[in-house]
Parts: sequence; structure tokens; C-alpha cells
Amino acid sequence: MKRVYNFNAGPSPMPLEVLEGLKEDLTDFRQTGMGITEISHRSKEFQVMLDETKALVHHLTGLDDSYKVVFVQGGGTMQFIMTAMNFLHCKGAYADTGVWTTKAMKNASYYGTVYEASSSKDKQYSYIPKTVKVEAGTDYLYLCANNTIYGTEYQAFPRVEVPMIADMSSNMLSRTYDFTKFDLVWAGVQKNLGAAGTALVIVKESLLERARTDIPEFFRYETYVKSDSTYNTPPVFSIYTVNRTLQWLEKLGGLTAMEALNRKKAAEIYAVIDGSEGFYRGHAVKEDRSRMNVTFTLETPELEAEFVEQAKAHGFIGLKGHRLVGGLRASLYNAVTLEAAEALAMFMKEFQNNH
Amino acid sequence: MKRVYNFNAGPSPMPLEVLEGLKEDLTDFRQTGMGITEISHRSKEFQVMLDETKALVHHLTGLDDSYKVVFVQGGGTMQFIMTAMNFLHCKGAYADTGVWTTKAMKNASYYGTVYEASSSKDKQYSYIPKTVKVEAGTDYLYLCANNTIYGTEYQAFPRVEVPMIADMSSNMLSRTYDFTKFDLVWAGVQKNLGAAGTALVIVKESLLERARTDIPEFFRYETYVKSDSTYNTPPVFSIYTVNRTLQWLEKLGGLTAMEALNRKKAAEIYAVIDGSEGFYRGHAVKEDRSRMNVTFTLETPELEAEFVEQAKAHGFIGLKGHRLVGGLRASLYNAVTLEAAEALAMFMKEFQNNH
Repeated sequence: MKRVYNFNAGPSPMPLEVLEGLKEDLTDFRQTGMGITEISHRSKEFQVMLDETKALVHHLTGLDDSYKVVFVQGGGTMQFIMTAMNFLHCKGAYADTGVWTTKAMKNASYYGTVYEASSSKDKQYSYIPKTVKVEAGTDYLYLCANNTIYGTEYQAFPRVEVPMIADMSSNMLSRTYDFTKFDLVWAGVQKNLGAAGTALVIVKESLLERARTDIPEFFRYETYVKSDSTYNTPPVFSIYTVNRTLQWLEKLGGLTAMEALNRKKAAEIYAVIDGSEGFYRGHAVKEDRSRMNVTFTLETPELEAEFVEQAKAHGFIGLKGHRLVGGLRASLYNAVTLEAAEALAMFMKEFQNNH
Repeated sequence: MKRVYNFNAGPSPMPLEVLEGLKEDLTDFRQTGMGITEISHRSKEFQVMLDETKALVHHLTGLDDSYKVVFVQGGGTMQFIMTAMNFLHCKGAYADTGVWTTKAMKNASYYGTVYEASSSKDKQYSYIPKTVKVEAGTDYLYLCANNTIYGTEYQAFPRVEVPMIADMSSNMLSRTYDFTKFDLVWAGVQKNLGAAGTALVIVKESLLERARTDIPEFFRYETYVKSDSTYNTPPVFSIYTVNRTLQWLEKLGGLTAMEALNRKKAAEIYAVIDGSEGFYRGHAVKEDRSRMNVTFTLETPELEAEFVEQAKAHGFIGLKGHRLVGGLRASLYNAVTLEAAEALAMFMKEFQNNH
């Protein structure tokens, strides 16, 4: 069947050339006579591939070897837990920007004291708080760089004196950031980086020194660093999809080129919203708008349902808002093409004209 | 490149027809116009596929709906931890058959008291202890059905009055067992069931009622049952490889046919060992030999290195023993063909003749 325009919030589209390339790898990975899912994670071939992947992350982010790159299973929830398990001694500060930071706090609370250093709850999480209050004795500030559900994204980060931990699941490597501001960055890969099954974690060595050691080895970031992500069998295929996707990203021109393209894509959709005279209503305030997830509503839930249905008939998938908040959402991750964004913008205008 | 004879201990070979079928699915899964890694885990298409997979597990094992099938990330180590976190109230009994049960005990010890209910440590784990001593007040007996490193496998299980938990990572669905003897069975899928990235867990409802609730939702089996394995984004591709592999297994004739084939494959290699007049030395005692992992040694480490090298030159991969114990090992998981086992047997005879 013809490929659809896929605006899923994650798992989400992958570059077609990456997927096509993976087909051969399923039965013969790099002339080994074995598929990528069949090679040993203790083999030279796996190690070379893993080393490449880590080098790509370093090159794309500009981070030096004082940052370590590891892959961890268990998705975001595992990271909510591991960040606290490892680094929460006294108290952890959380910048509350919606569902994901709330979940992070809730999970962290099993391991120590947590508190809100800021919150945009007062206005339905439609903005990014610009200041944070960090109490004395705080171990770290935790934030979520892009909020898929509310469609907000940090354009700049607060300056604090404590280590910064960022959930970048939904905008990792979609734009330039000064990554050196962070001590730990993690991202589930199923949005911008590859196929669901692993989180990419970048952790600064100096932060590792502050980690607890009274927890099982499995939960220690140190373990993943020391074992080079092979403490136990890693999700080889998922890591390899990251390898291929980052190669694609490099070829495209890296983060600067990606950011320019993502700006254009988002601008297409926001322009329709802003020019619709209230027919489409953006949720996020303009200055904090996400380039990854455009969230909007129509006048009634019925009209929204009609929008989703008609869009689907026209080959646009994944436009329903998150099940917790409703509304509509177009996710524009790296692999969503400019053509797809333009086609959606056109469809939105037509839909408005017909109503 | 020509496909090699792959005897890797895990990740390990997958059926060629499954891999070939997956290629199309990477760009167009079941006529959705999206690849399997691109569909939403909240979509109807994913749910149908998940339901099929669970039904296949029920059908192949013969287990009824009082057993729940879930998929959990994090591999074996996560299961070492979760089984204890959930079910260890007073004390846990462990049948010690080597590295994997030792690791399970070590991880469990973070959450309560554990003890050895039996052990074959006295003879380098070359046999399966036939009796277990379960103390009063024990929450469960934990065992490992097949031991990849030492090449031993339970042919029958001890009878105990407490719930039984089995790590079947390396022989799951490779043979018939009376699965109703167990209250929880888990298996990393990368040996017999699919591509690394998920563990298959089958848990009896009555055991769930005994689970702790003072742990994060993420670690509770109950959460995976209630959310139907989608508490957070599951490793969709990995689960789908299980779906395809179990379909292949059904078509082959289910567990009875698979067991017959696996017996034949193992018999080929053991026959060479037993007929070699001490040139090849099997590690496990005959009655407890694993059909999945044939472990053996040669007179010297030098000769073993030569064996591995020559085997590789002849297209046989993965014959080195586990890094912790050395020696040689041929893993004969479900997807290893009879032809591959016969070819290896022939090679072993020739190697002996030349020495």
C-alpha cells in the first residue's frame, strides 16, 4: 500500500531510506551471513556498530568524551525511576510542565523527596515557566524539554547551580541545543531516533560520581557505562535503527540542517492555525510552541472527530490528541517530510473552507 | 553473503522465512501504509497483533485464561528483580544450577531473604539437583529450566507446595512441558522466540493476588496485565518478531513437532561426543543434558581455539563457550535447522579424524 502521511506521536515515522536499508540487514548484516537480530552482542560486528552509534551521538551533539553514551531498556518510565534511584540523595527539583514531569516526580517519590521548582499548571500547561526556584540541598533539577501532550518546548533553559537532567524524548536531535548545560539527557528513541525498544542516555562523568551505589547494578548508570551497554543482552535491533537514523541525519547536514527543516514544517501548520481566525485554536502560547508537536482544538469535539475521520480518508494518520487531554495534534518529528507538512497544511485549509 | 550456520547462544538465529516476511513489514505493515516500527501502540492494528501473539502463546502452551501473557522490557535481569520485588515477602527459595540462578538470587537479595533450596555447585553445575528443600514460610521456589552455560536442562520438575517461578529464557517453547505446574514463567525472547528487546512473561492470576503493592507501578506485573503490556511504549518490533516466530512454530506443528526436531538435532551432536572416545568431552551428565546448549571441551584450550577457527572457516559461527567458563558450546535453538546440526556433526567428526 502507498505510504501514508504519518503524524503519530510515537512510535512515529522513520526515514524511508533507513527502513529500506534495514531490509537487507534482516537477513545479512554487513556481509556476516547473519541478520542484525541474529548476531551476538559480544561479537566484533556488534561492537563496531555500537561504537559508530556512540560516535554519531557525540558528533551530532558536539559533546566530548566527558559525556558517556549508553542505551537502556524500559523506556521513559525506567528513566523516571533511574534518574531518581541514582541521583536522589536529599531532594530533587522538578520543573512541572505537564504529564511527563508529573509522572517523573511520582516515580521519583519512591526514592526520596521531590518538589516542584516551577509549574505551568495554572494555565493548563500552555507555557514553559521561565524561572525555577531551587532550594538549598537539592540534588538536581529535572525538566522535560518538549511536552508532547501540550505542545510546548523549551527554547532556552533556566540557569541553575545544581546538575540538570533533561527528558528530551520528543525533541532529541531535532534542533541545536547547548547540550553542555546538562549533566544527563535521556530520550526514548521511538520519536526522532529509531524504533521503540531503547532509551538513549547521555550522562556526564562528573554526575556519575555522585550516584548511589546501594541499588542493584542493573539500575546504576555506571553499570551501563562500564559494560558499554552490554551488562545484559541489549535490544540490538533498536540500537541499530538509531545507528542508521543518525547516519541519515548526518548526511542531511546534522542538527543545523534538521532544525531549519523542522522550523519550516512547524511554520506551515502554525501559519494555518494563526490564519484561521479562530477556526483552529493553538493550545500553546506562541513563544513556547513546540516544533515537534502542534496541538490544537476545533470548536466542538464532534468537529474534531470529523476532522480526524476526513484526514484519515485523505491519507493523514495520527492526528488525534493524546487520550488524556483530547483535541488534535500533529507530530512533526525528524522523519516527517516537508511534503507531508505542506500536504497537511493544505488539507487543514480545505477542511476549514468546507465548514 | 551466504547464510552461515549460526550456533550463537543468544541473540541467535531466527527462521529465515520469518526474517524474509519481516522485510515487507518494515515499510508496510498489513497494508497500513506504515512500517511495523511506525504504527502507534495505541492503534487497532497493534492491538490485533498483540492479541494474536497472546493467543498463540496460550495455544502453544495449553494454558487457559487463568494465566496472563505480558511483555516486559529489560531482559532477564529485570525479571530477576521483578520476581523478587513482586513476590518476596518473607523468603525466596532458589534452586542453584549455575550463573543465572546465582544472578537471580543476588538481585533478589536487595528485596528480602533468599536461600538455596538445592545446588549442583559441588560438581561444577554438571547436573540438575533432583530434590529441593523448601523451608516453612517460603514465598516461592525459583529455578532456571535450562542452563545455557553448563548445558543442563530440567527434564522433570520438583513438586513443591509453594508457587513455582521458572526462568525459561533458553528453552521456552522448544519442548512440551506441563506449564500448569508453574505460577510464573518468563523468557527473554532472543533465543527461541524472536528478536532481543522483550521478555515474555506468563503469570497465573492467583499469584498476582500475592504481589506487593508498595513498589512503583512500572515494576508490578499487575500493571502489565491491566494495561495489556502498554503501560508505556512497548518494544513493538520485538513483540512482532515473536508473533511471526510463533506463527511459524504453529505451522511446523507446535511444541510436539518442535520437540521431536530438537531431540534429533541434539542427538546428532551428542552422538559425535559419545562416539569420540574422549576426544570431545561433554560437560553435563547424560540424563540432564540440554537439548538447547551442547557444552563440551577438547583436551587443551589451544585445540579448542583451533576448533573454533576452523569451524568459522567452514561457516559455523558461535561455537565458543561462555566467556565465564570457556570450552565449546553449540546452541541448537528452535530456528537452528536439522541440516545445520548434521553439518556440524559431520565437521566435528572430520576435525577429530584430522587430529
